[in-house]
Amino acid sequence: MSTSINTLCKELTVGVYVIGVAHQERLHAFTAAWVMQVSFNPPLLALSINPHHYSYALLAAGRKCSVNVLGQQHLALAEHFGRSHTGNKMAGFRWQTAVTGAPILSDCLTYFDCTVSHFTEAGDHQLAICEIIAAQRLSSERPLLYHETDTMDKAHTLYPS
Amino acid sequence: MSTSINTLCKELTVGVYVIGVAHQERLHAFTAAWVMQVSFNPPLLALSINPHHYSYALLAAGRKCSVNVLGQQHLALAEHFGRSHTGNKMAGFRWQTAVTGAPILSDCLTYFDCTVSHFTEAGDHQLAICEIIAAQRLSSERPLLYHETDTMDKAHTLYPS
Repeated sequence: MSTSINTLCKELTVGVYVIGVAHQERLHAFTAAWVMQVSFNPPLLALSINPHHYSYALLAAGRKCSVNVLGQQHLALAEHFGRSHTGNKMAGFRWQTAVTGAPILSDCLTYFDCTVSHFTEAGDHQLAICEIIAAQRLSSERPLLYHETDTMDKAHTLYPS
Repeated sequence: MSTSINTLCKELTVGVYVIGVAHQERLHAFTAAWVMQVSFNPPLLALSINPHHYSYALLAAGRKCSVNVLGQQHLALAEHFGRSHTGNKMAGFRWQTAVTGAPILSDCLTYFDCTVSHFTEAGDHQLAICEIIAAQRLSSERPLLYHETDTMDKAHTLYPS
């Protein structure tokens, strides 16, 4: 088959998340799909992030983030945080904090409040290994799968194959 | 809520895979759920692996692996490769190779044939960053989700919380 490797990678199942980052007074959030648990003890997750994005600078400087699980009802929210904005991307949503101070999206299914352990190179992305400091389920609805969004962010089109 | 962090991590959606590893004449395979894409160009995936397992020694020495996507019909197969075996775990299944020589499970939905780029520490696991050298879809059925297996490998019970 001539299907490209990146197209076939859609068979690697992932969810959809809003990642909240903070450094000093600056807050930001973005939609991500490349998130998974990587360790039980300590509980760690890995998050792959485009280093050219503003959020990466905040994550690298602030060393903390929230991972907010989106559900079926959050498609518009996923699209909002998947786009670049010239205005205040955070406005119009309810945010809370837990332990680290990273902005947590109050309208999510489950949040993970994390500190960054370290980064490792991952091609056109950076992989952040993050320790989960606190977590809470806010809703028992079913998490959204990335392939259910019809790859709305078209992220794969940003990269030459 | 008092739900443990590791229990809440089930809200981070992942699939189910058989990972094939090889070093010289030694072949092995194991079931994994912590796999995701982490880069478009080059196409990379990350795989979290328990460094105390035999497969890790082969992966670290052989520097190659296959990631084989399992589907709804593969529950017994996932259980087989999720258990420790004293005999030949590979027997009774059809295997093929592509570019790297890692054993590819012929009865999978899609395979990714990979070389290991590097490892990074991830708590009680090691995270292997792997470049996808070749990939092919062998079946268009829907990938199995890990939560649909009822966490059959009970991996989380192996680790103190």
